[in-house]
Amino acid sequence: MAVPTHPFDPLEPREISKAADIARSAFPEQRLVFRVITLQEPPKEEMLQFLEKEHAMQPVNDRPARMARVQVVTRDVSGKNQLMELLVDLDRAVVGKQEHLAGKHSYIDSNYMQSVEKACLADARVQEEIKKLALPTGASVIVEAWAYAPDGMNDMSERVTMCWFYMRLVDNPDANYYAYPLDLCAEVSEQLQVTRVYQLPSSADGRTHDTPQPYDHRKIQSPVASEYHPSLRPPPRTTTKPYQVTQPEGPSFESHGNRLSWEKWSMRVGFNYREGLTLHDVRYDGRSLFYRLSLAEMFVPYGDPRSPYPRKAAFDLGNDGAGINANNLRLGCDCLGVIKYFDGWHNTSAGEPLKLPNVICCHEQDDGILWKHTNFRTQNAAVTRARVLVLQTIITVSNYEYIFAFYFGQDASIHYEVRATGILSTCPINVGNQVPYGTVVGPGVLAPYHQHLFCLRMDPALDGPKNSLQVEESVPMPVGDPTVHNPFGVGYTTTRNIISQEQGLDLDFAKNRTFKIINEDQINPVTGTPVGFKLLPYYSQMLLAHPQSHHAKRSEFANHAVWVTRYQDNELFPSGRHTMQSAGGEGIASAIKRRQTGPPARSSVRNEDIVVWHTFGSTHNPRIEDWPVMPCEKMAVGLKPLNFFTGNPGLDVALSTQEANRSVLVGGQAASSPSACCKL
Amino acid sequence: MAVPTHPFDPLEPREISKAADIARSAFPEQRLVFRVITLQEPPKEEMLQFLEKEHAMQPVNDRPARMARVQVVTRDVSGKNQLMELLVDLDRAVVGKQEHLAGKHSYIDSNYMQSVEKACLADARVQEEIKKLALPTGASVIVEAWAYAPDGMNDMSERVTMCWFYMRLVDNPDANYYAYPLDLCAEVSEQLQVTRVYQLPSSADGRTHDTPQPYDHRKIQSPVASEYHPSLRPPPRTTTKPYQVTQPEGPSFESHGNRLSWEKWSMRVGFNYREGLTLHDVRYDGRSLFYRLSLAEMFVPYGDPRSPYPRKAAFDLGNDGAGINANNLRLGCDCLGVIKYFDGWHNTSAGEPLKLPNVICCHEQDDGILWKHTNFRTQNAAVTRARVLVLQTIITVSNYEYIFAFYFGQDASIHYEVRATGILSTCPINVGNQVPYGTVVGPGVLAPYHQHLFCLRMDPALDGPKNSLQVEESVPMPVGDPTVHNPFGVGYTTTRNIISQEQGLDLDFAKNRTFKIINEDQINPVTGTPVGFKLLPYYSQMLLAHPQSHHAKRSEFANHAVWVTRYQDNELFPSGRHTMQSAGGEGIASAIKRRQTGPPARSSVRNEDIVVWHTFGSTHNPRIEDWPVMPCEKMAVGLKPLNFFTGNPGLDVALSTQEANRSVLVGGQAASSPSACCKL
Repeated sequence: MAVPTHPFDPLEPREISKAADIARSAFPEQRLVFRVITLQEPPKEEMLQFLEKEHAMQPVNDRPARMARVQVVTRDVSGKNQLMELLVDLDRAVVGKQEHLAGKHSYIDSNYMQSVEKACLADARVQEEIKKLALPTGASVIVEAWAYAPDGMNDMSERVTMCWFYMRLVDNPDANYYAYPLDLCAEVSEQLQVTRVYQLPSSADGRTHDTPQPYDHRKIQSPVASEYHPSLRPPPRTTTKPYQVTQPEGPSFESHGNRLSWEKWSMRVGFNYREGLTLHDVRYDGRSLFYRLSLAEMFVPYGDPRSPYPRKAAFDLGNDGAGINANNLRLGCDCLGVIKYFDGWHNTSAGEPLKLPNVICCHEQDDGILWKHTNFRTQNAAVTRARVLVLQTIITVSNYEYIFAFYFGQDASIHYEVRATGILSTCPINVGNQVPYGTVVGPGVLAPYHQHLFCLRMDPALDGPKNSLQVEESVPMPVGDPTVHNPFGVGYTTTRNIISQEQGLDLDFAKNRTFKIINEDQINPVTGTPVGFKLLPYYSQMLLAHPQSHHAKRSEFANHAVWVTRYQDNELFPSGRHTMQSAGGEGIASAIKRRQTGPPARSSVRNEDIVVWHTFGSTHNPRIEDWPVMPCEKMAVGLKPLNFFTGNPGLDVALSTQEANRSVLVGGQAASSPSACCKL
Repeated sequence: MAVPTHPFDPLEPREISKAADIARSAFPEQRLVFRVITLQEPPKEEMLQFLEKEHAMQPVNDRPARMARVQVVTRDVSGKNQLMELLVDLDRAVVGKQEHLAGKHSYIDSNYMQSVEKACLADARVQEEIKKLALPTGASVIVEAWAYAPDGMNDMSERVTMCWFYMRLVDNPDANYYAYPLDLCAEVSEQLQVTRVYQLPSSADGRTHDTPQPYDHRKIQSPVASEYHPSLRPPPRTTTKPYQVTQPEGPSFESHGNRLSWEKWSMRVGFNYREGLTLHDVRYDGRSLFYRLSLAEMFVPYGDPRSPYPRKAAFDLGNDGAGINANNLRLGCDCLGVIKYFDGWHNTSAGEPLKLPNVICCHEQDDGILWKHTNFRTQNAAVTRARVLVLQTIITVSNYEYIFAFYFGQDASIHYEVRATGILSTCPINVGNQVPYGTVVGPGVLAPYHQHLFCLRMDPALDGPKNSLQVEESVPMPVGDPTVHNPFGVGYTTTRNIISQEQGLDLDFAKNRTFKIINEDQINPVTGTPVGFKLLPYYSQMLLAHPQSHHAKRSEFANHAVWVTRYQDNELFPSGRHTMQSAGGEGIASAIKRRQTGPPARSSVRNEDIVVWHTFGSTHNPRIEDWPVMPCEKMAVGLKPLNFFTGNPGLDVALSTQEANRSVLVGGQAASSPSACCKL
């Protein structure tokens, strides 16, 4: 018997088809191009009631309506594309609500981008400019189409696409053309017309060459320096011996449909075209922790000030989609050990279900020691090993990849890790030149400075939906104050402040500033303080672009490290619902400002249903070691219980034993304690 | 044939015996109590010459003299203990230099501490006070002896030991007596006399009870809450399935004596009683990176202002010794997979060699993905997995343990990780009371706030001994400045400052402040900038104690996150050579200040032989989840090449294949791509 659909489950293939059918029948006169057919998650109020009954094992008669959110492109009377969003009630088979998204653009359409590339290359002026470059024999030109980040220089009511030019020097489709950026750029209109062709700045003064320059042959590199793909490289090192993970009794996790349980954790795995992996109803030992966890947005602005580079600023979730661009993960490559894969589903432009295979992998890892103590009086050691559950998804966004992973611990911690890898985005530079906002990674190849700014959205429900955000700092006790007992000047204590109104906040490690999500109504029976979880932030520089710049206005979330807002249904994206060519003013700061003009209660976040957002990332000033493919740069954020339980949640993990672990001494080494292991 | 002793090799057993013999024959009249017999590392000047010849495969005729540093305690004419340090030339069999360490104390002597415990418990007044406590039937009293952190209240010319009292409620030597701190304290003199017995403060006002209080039976807890040892707990969870690592072709590392090589890394493993694990002559692909890496000190001051708690402030390296307290690591427990152990050697008080078995474990770990790129045009994915080499050592210091590990990466990165685990140090508190500098973890059990501050010493030799420290920040380009081309306000650049004089510096993530060790004489051929490595710091609050407090004066290193000094032979310890009951003024800040009074060239650190020290740690305000045994708290520091190589150092790692990795699908799961792996 099939597991019945849970309200948090992504749409099933049959539901995608049904939603398309319903949409089509509502617009019989029109040809609908389906951009999105995804789950419209139920209103939280309804879900909380559902979850309460579900976890109490009570019958649920009033399930939330199964709704699809559908985005379609239609043509208006003038033949212009028009974006529309429909809420489709799958149970009642009706379109519940429809909204014309005037002035908004849908996320990137890869078929369209391919058409842009073709149109660009087919353009006579482009071909003429290419000819002027006098490229080496055998070279082929590659056009990389990028979404246009508004800079105020073009009308944004229609799509405008930036085309960057590269060269493939060898006849191999996996050749690294990013090693050969060409001194050429084009803009393509919604109607696939090349509207402008121009040269790129090639020196620090921001100027282009006065006349087109033929290709500088000093830029041609050895494949050893410029190629990453093994088919183009010398044989790899052979020193790395195989390393295998076996779990003779199988994995410690179980899944039923999208419900996943492991050790004392339970959660529901979600997936959608935009956020990719999402997690819902995350519980530990039956206690509610998080209603929803997701990467909500990311922004990659480039720091090269020279026009047209300010147009390079990607919202990789809002514009590209972490779901749509999720890799098909391969056994033996992307995870190690005993793996469960989850597939995702999207839709074709015709509204048919489209399978995205193996977009999430789930497996366990050993994580070293969980806890240890050696009684120095008895020399008895008690040691446990830490097992973690990993849920990983990987996305490719043109040149870059991001590896996103949630790690669940036996100590009731959650870590969210981002690894940035892939290939640097490059642009041309005169041989021998340097600029102060980029690194030369090869002759004539500039890797400009840029930032990767991520926003993790945490919708907490610690022992219930009403939570608060508390900011704690560790401060020295005063010296010489007769009212304070600190005779030796070594005392320190903490200050605690509960945030009352929606706002953005900043990190300060020098004060040990700690952001705690707490439930003020649940007092820990041992410590006498509210139960909570603390955020382990990733300390990062915030957005460097000027507050009045398009980048700042469009991203909004990238100005503060921690944001707290009052929960609102559908408020999921901190740079707004529509980021493609967005004008700005639709993100988290604007939402807070809007609500501030209403009654204070509307934006109160103390002991309310709150959402906490963490902005983190890297100011990525490329190193040569990031070239031609970048070793992963890791960034990790954590959530740890803080006086939530009544003791170490991993205290009951069994001691580590050689019987279970089967470690091996290096050949021939005599063990000082051959049969040794922890004593009981 | 035995591997010949390398100048960096720790003393061998026969050398320890020989050093003791030489020392004894130099002092025939005296009974020497041997505290230390360890390698005196050769002067760097000599070693650099040696290493140059060694790596050039040239014959070395002038090996540095093999020297032992010996600390002995003798009795002076008045019968007082006297500490002396001898430099013993093992080749010439003579005592080269001797120094009376007047006013200094040797590190903690565990035999002596046991005598203190016995003497304390045998004392009539102590017994009388214990009687007044009217402890529950069957309870036994445990005395925990601690080194005295000076607070100005006692003469420190002789040893004074603080005795804290605990109770063991059940008759099991592994019972967690830290769950039963008693309201009693004693001080014991060098001559094992109990000099003072008193009650501890029991409430927030710092006062003790007016009259001794009988034991409050409300403090008696269930073992489920207070015990960590499995023999005293309910059966553990059984849900964690076995997880094994196999390396069918053996490990990828090789060792010859203390020389270790793995992938492109080579290094020498050292070990001594104080620092424990040390690393020497660390190279990548034959290029010199670090002359020496070690944890140089750690300081654990407690934040409870009430006397006598300011005396709780431990130098776990200087006072206790990370080598002496290193755990005997057990197969199947402390590491997983194919393990090589290294033994350490120390000495008995009689000067005999004492084996410290399995103090270092060496093994490999899989670390997820090293780099990946999917060509979106061909859908060809190239993915490599990251292998890391781990060198781990674990120390027990009374209640706490620390797990120290170096991780070497195929991307030429080094990470140093500290995990804090073990049991919180506790003190008594009235049932129902709270104090603002501690967490109540059980009825009557206070876990006071404290800090763990570590100092990692990095002696760089990037392409040679002369290096510089460069501080880089990422800064927005000005807007509205006609001399700067930043028309859209999105440009950013970097400022770079090379440190010229010895000093302590602070972190600032908001500016993306980056500390780079560079070699100004070696310019990267691709980027045109000096070769370097950058520090990935662990952002931490510095010492909270007042700058005029004993804690601040004694520790010194804990006031700044990054220190740069000019290399001096034997300047290894940032709180001074002798930390036991130290008066202060002997640490890194004092050394810098001393040299500042000399000619500027003496403290110049630009393009000189420099040492970089990183202070990091945690302000540990205990959570109930840290009780009764603490899940590891991780802190990690990294070093990454920054324009040191000419490309990704892990570029030649072979693609990941299912053939080598042998991953397994979860039972019954149909693979979307059954035989899939990365395509070549």
